[in-house]
Amino acid sequence: MNQIRVAVAGCGTVGSHFIEVLRRNRYALKQKTGLSFDLVAAADIQAEKGNLLPGRFFRDARQLVKEPDIDIIVELIGGIHPAYELVKEAILSGKSVVTANKALLSQYGEELMNLAAENRVYIGFEASVGGAIPIIKTVRESFVGTSIKRLLAILNGTTNYILSRMTMEKMPFAAALKKAQEKGYAEANPALDLSGMDTAHKLGILVRYLFHKIISWEKIPVEGIENIDQKDIEFASQLGYRIKLLAVADRRLNSLQLAVFPALLPVNHLLAVVEDVYNAIYLEGDLIGRSLLYGQGAGGKAAASAVLADVTEIGMKLNQGGYAAIYWPQDKNLVLESADNFSSRSYLRFTAVDRPGVLARIAYLLGKNNISIASVIQKDQNPRQAVPIVMLTHEAREKSFSRALKEINSLDIIRKPTVRIRMVE
Amino acid sequence: MNQIRVAVAGCGTVGSHFIEVLRRNRYALKQKTGLSFDLVAAADIQAEKGNLLPGRFFRDARQLVKEPDIDIIVELIGGIHPAYELVKEAILSGKSVVTANKALLSQYGEELMNLAAENRVYIGFEASVGGAIPIIKTVRESFVGTSIKRLLAILNGTTNYILSRMTMEKMPFAAALKKAQEKGYAEANPALDLSGMDTAHKLGILVRYLFHKIISWEKIPVEGIENIDQKDIEFASQLGYRIKLLAVADRRLNSLQLAVFPALLPVNHLLAVVEDVYNAIYLEGDLIGRSLLYGQGAGGKAAASAVLADVTEIGMKLNQGGYAAIYWPQDKNLVLESADNFSSRSYLRFTAVDRPGVLARIAYLLGKNNISIASVIQKDQNPRQAVPIVMLTHEAREKSFSRALKEINSLDIIRKPTVRIRMVE
Repeated sequence: MNQIRVAVAGCGTVGSHFIEVLRRNRYALKQKTGLSFDLVAAADIQAEKGNLLPGRFFRDARQLVKEPDIDIIVELIGGIHPAYELVKEAILSGKSVVTANKALLSQYGEELMNLAAENRVYIGFEASVGGAIPIIKTVRESFVGTSIKRLLAILNGTTNYILSRMTMEKMPFAAALKKAQEKGYAEANPALDLSGMDTAHKLGILVRYLFHKIISWEKIPVEGIENIDQKDIEFASQLGYRIKLLAVADRRLNSLQLAVFPALLPVNHLLAVVEDVYNAIYLEGDLIGRSLLYGQGAGGKAAASAVLADVTEIGMKLNQGGYAAIYWPQDKNLVLESADNFSSRSYLRFTAVDRPGVLARIAYLLGKNNISIASVIQKDQNPRQAVPIVMLTHEAREKSFSRALKEINSLDIIRKPTVRIRMVE
Repeated sequence: MNQIRVAVAGCGTVGSHFIEVLRRNRYALKQKTGLSFDLVAAADIQAEKGNLLPGRFFRDARQLVKEPDIDIIVELIGGIHPAYELVKEAILSGKSVVTANKALLSQYGEELMNLAAENRVYIGFEASVGGAIPIIKTVRESFVGTSIKRLLAILNGTTNYILSRMTMEKMPFAAALKKAQEKGYAEANPALDLSGMDTAHKLGILVRYLFHKIISWEKIPVEGIENIDQKDIEFASQLGYRIKLLAVADRRLNSLQLAVFPALLPVNHLLAVVEDVYNAIYLEGDLIGRSLLYGQGAGGKAAASAVLADVTEIGMKLNQGGYAAIYWPQDKNLVLESADNFSSRSYLRFTAVDRPGVLARIAYLLGKNNISIASVIQKDQNPRQAVPIVMLTHEAREKSFSRALKEINSLDIIRKPTVRIRMVE
């Protein structure tokens, strides 16, 4: 076999970029691998897309599975159905698959990986997490001997863009979201991004390779950025911190803490300088020490770059004959830690009436719940209005924070629910 | 073949870490790849090292080539001879090779790569550049479809450690170098690091894969950090810059600029936060946009991590049968630009007598040579002593700077040769 026959299902933004990138790299790939990577078929629900493409065209992507002369199907439809059916049938018919579909993988990844191994075909999914960042390949191949202790990652470009605008241009949340939508970074319904769910999907995919554990993303505690106020970004800046939506994983012996939440990061942290739609993944491991991979997390070109890398690698493996997949055995001893057992330093913003004794009452209830205060900002003085009191705490348990904040929020001096944002170092 | 038989030549820091990492990962690698990676032989000039190792042991590494039952020889001797002879003979005898030897590769890389392809064996060299950072794999595989426009990289841990100490603890150069030596980061003879040559070796290796061009490292203009004064670091800080020793590559159409020099980077640059012995590689490309890979650039564990990744990958390919190397065709149209044609903004520090008209005479000679001044610092006022005058210039040609500085340095008001450090954005 000196030809690798590629079919693309879904000719939207990523699909059309991939088709163009494949065409433009055809000669170079031939020189590098000795193989001719040819687009032989494509599918899209919009029939008119077929006019611009070489090879066969179908409106129903599942027709691609029936074509015998296809080696790799590139699934870029997105969403779970019919992407799931397409990928499954493709594998069962002996075709390898490349996909950028994080929703599909976070739901059916395990089943599809196992099915691919049983059928001795390959499934590539580099584009599903971190866009152009080669995080899957790096963790599975380059860091194969490393035991990962910790991950901190910015995995969602939309929310990072919004937080960047709120920080750098002091935009309120709503204006920053509107700008992200105008730029095409945020969906009309941005809930999946803002709520942190998209980040949780990606964390779920990474966890399998970082920690040898299959964790359904539904088990990951998730907080989004919907309640982040420009005020909090401002106070954080004054204190020397940036607010970022983070995927966090911490391994201690046989327990694993996973979470997605907005966090205060010191301005000199490697992740604090990640702005706009960029993504970055910070890892700590026994052999590698500290590592960071930074790059474009979204966009047609970045995703097409990752898809092309998968297609090239799978093409070379198919041409070599035999079967050489990396398996990823599960660590049966590793247990997911309950979120109640997490502990962290926190940023707290109270909205209280400005009268003597307020700070004492808040401090008393924090102390009673074993939360000690590291620093306080109380600036505005206005006896007629509620004023913000900002505190950074020392490390304390989740339970302590929820109990303390419940007690504090029910005080008559408190005018709005207290804002709490975790701190990460 | 379900066993991959590995031999290690050179059981120093990296070698002994690799042997330990291989042993510790043996079970995991078996699960992930279905293959048993076994250390079957080792070589070291110190005979007593053999007592601690399983398998055969030789004092002469080239004996390993004659052993028929070895699949991969890991060359960790370092230096050019006898590493070159060992690698060449290993390839000719049908064995694959993994090496961390940047000096060898920058001298004989092309010959050895071609020889490996002719003999259908593999040569892995991820550990030769950037320690644990998977830069070779990323550029060759993950960024296979991307055309790289620019590289800025910190590739030498020793010099970065020295500059970090000079910046963070305000140490003079000599004290920082001494501390690096005490910590084991700098060799007794640190010339290869300080002069920028080690960085040039690594840049030479990367250029082949970044730009499809074989450039002997001897053709790369190199400046080291030997003349960086703590004063310059201090002035740079005041102006919002960090000084880093950079490998720089810029591609414009068919011309390529390569250089190694200490440079002023804005404090908010991704590379400005890279401290201590860490390395980082910043890339810009058409598909990927901006990308950064950051990690431990040196040390036995980091190098062992990269070596294990190569050994695993080559083992899997050998087991699969056939031959699947990535070739790297040369871009015949690409021409190395002469350093005379470079242009840059620059930091200039003049040491002049403190008397009226000095600034005017310096400014006149800069202007005459088409160098325009962006900002000036002249702080100390001491009529009896020479004082520093610091300027940041706008962009100007190398030739302009050398002519202007020659003229200025010959003025009677100038007491020491003017310091020039390029600025990079």
